[in-house]
Amino acid sequence: MSDTVVVGLDIGGTSTRATALTLTGRRVGTGRAGGGNPTSHGAQRAAVELLTALRAALADLDPARVVAGTIGLAGAARLLADPAGRAAFDRAWHDAGLRCPYAVHGDALVAYASGTAALDGTVLVAGTGAITAQVHELRLDRIADGHGWLLGDAGSGFWLGREAVRRLLADLDAGRAPGALATTVLTELLGSADIAAHPRDTVDATIQVVTRRPPIELARLAPLVVDAATDGDPVATALISEAAAHLADSVSRIRPADAVTPVVLGGGLLTANTPLAAAVRAEIARQWPDTPLCTAGDGAVAAAWLAARELPEVTDPAALHARLFATT
Amino acid sequence: MSDTVVVGLDIGGTSTRATALTLTGRRVGTGRAGGGNPTSHGAQRAAVELLTALRAALADLDPARVVAGTIGLAGAARLLADPAGRAAFDRAWHDAGLRCPYAVHGDALVAYASGTAALDGTVLVAGTGAITAQVHELRLDRIADGHGWLLGDAGSGFWLGREAVRRLLADLDAGRAPGALATTVLTELLGSADIAAHPRDTVDATIQVVTRRPPIELARLAPLVVDAATDGDPVATALISEAAAHLADSVSRIRPADAVTPVVLGGGLLTANTPLAAAVRAEIARQWPDTPLCTAGDGAVAAAWLAARELPEVTDPAALHARLFATT
Repeated sequence: MSDTVVVGLDIGGTSTRATALTLTGRRVGTGRAGGGNPTSHGAQRAAVELLTALRAALADLDPARVVAGTIGLAGAARLLADPAGRAAFDRAWHDAGLRCPYAVHGDALVAYASGTAALDGTVLVAGTGAITAQVHELRLDRIADGHGWLLGDAGSGFWLGREAVRRLLADLDAGRAPGALATTVLTELLGSADIAAHPRDTVDATIQVVTRRPPIELARLAPLVVDAATDGDPVATALISEAAAHLADSVSRIRPADAVTPVVLGGGLLTANTPLAAAVRAEIARQWPDTPLCTAGDGAVAAAWLAARELPEVTDPAALHARLFATT
Repeated sequence: MSDTVVVGLDIGGTSTRATALTLTGRRVGTGRAGGGNPTSHGAQRAAVELLTALRAALADLDPARVVAGTIGLAGAARLLADPAGRAAFDRAWHDAGLRCPYAVHGDALVAYASGTAALDGTVLVAGTGAITAQVHELRLDRIADGHGWLLGDAGSGFWLGREAVRRLLADLDAGRAPGALATTVLTELLGSADIAAHPRDTVDATIQVVTRRPPIELARLAPLVVDAATDGDPVATALISEAAAHLADSVSRIRPADAVTPVVLGGGLLTANTPLAAAVRAEIARQWPDTPLCTAGDGAVAAAWLAARELPEVTDPAALHARLFATT
């Protein structure tokens, strides 16, 4: 059994990570590659990153020891519906020397499994975007939000960044002196917090800088909001409260009011010790007082666990989960 | 004096309109051409539409009778700062046979002047976008919003359309039966209000239809919100209230609390007899009880008036305004 290895991959927008684990919970290989979200980068590019990360994880291993694998990625359903994309993934898997089958799951399921071994529960992921899912028997069931920046992702990093700019523009319109958050946003966007003699010129310059870039880059301002809220800036604090309310609202769209299953918080905004994570935890504890709140961990390890738990030799998947996450 | 003619042009995103008027208020020519917003269509294309509209307006006139002209358009400041664009406009003006100078004003000023002859006041325009301006001595002074769909235009047609889709997606997430507004939005976007066996498929289809088009086309859904609110749909009614609050907020950013100058309401959402126009009127009457509320009229006529009132023979511009708008 110690010869048996499973691999897990977590393919995200900014990085791809692979982990090879024995069923005793020993990490025998890790790999890292560039962002490979097939929705934004195309399946061919994603397959290239997949292969790079896999090869690194398998560098010191006989690939024949690998008996199962799982890939977690955003847009999994779209990949599975795309024969050319699926073929590119098959090829990368084969080129890495792997002959076992692999499963593909949405990144939300992998985030969920990185926080709990429970078969049923809720996962809320807030990073650049925001999505909530009900998990039933370790499959994504109902989903809320994840609608993308134009129509949704309320309370996400994009949302925080956009709202920070909106508050800044409202201050400039009204001739109010910019506060701490507005000052850092102005400096980040324009290189200086100086306001032109005609404030409308600063308004126009701000809008031009933002609209010249892809809209999603507004998410890069989210850490400024988090930091300003940490420092007690009232505008940032209000935005964090509003974001937490949006995120909790998306949970309450799909999670039964009497649920006691765990809630896993994932994504960069909720796994770090931020005021947003604290506000979301408080809001969820208020609405579901008896719910265990878990934080998402290593997605590649969770993907490997999802692969392992299907194996006949794994008789206690929860114990394996505890073991795997204890060693990472 | 009856031989003297002024021309006014209102260059908008969907149409360009020209009017030639005598100083006694007689309309002696009108012209119409395609949309010519130089910001969205480029100054060269705008100049072509300008020439077409001008030629039609001057068809039965000796152009030598025209002694002054005004062009109102969105993005006027950008045109004036662009020598090539300005040259294209000069050429069109000349090609139409005109030898008099012309002035260029922002569309918000022209909308203001189409509602009142008062030198000072406020104009709130809500169509596809939304902008508010304080007018001082018939020049745009402070401006609020007009920040574009990504960062602002709160309460605009774009905003109403986007919020209508967001409410629809929230209903689908939560498994709520779509109400009247959601049903018409679904039908408009997908050709049917049927919801797939997996409602997430309908969510994905809706998002795909919207994101395949330019975001600004969400404004095309605004009339559905207005109609549903007129019919008493509660979701649409709530959206209209929220839009009215956003529009009133943008006014209060720049209009002094004790102002008694007129407020002109312009743009397709506020000049028609809509629930949004009624809600905005009520909100403004509440905040500024002594304020005359005016509705924007013919922009090309207002542009012509702005040209005429600078002429020495026009001794009573307010009387001319009354006369001009009485005859249109």
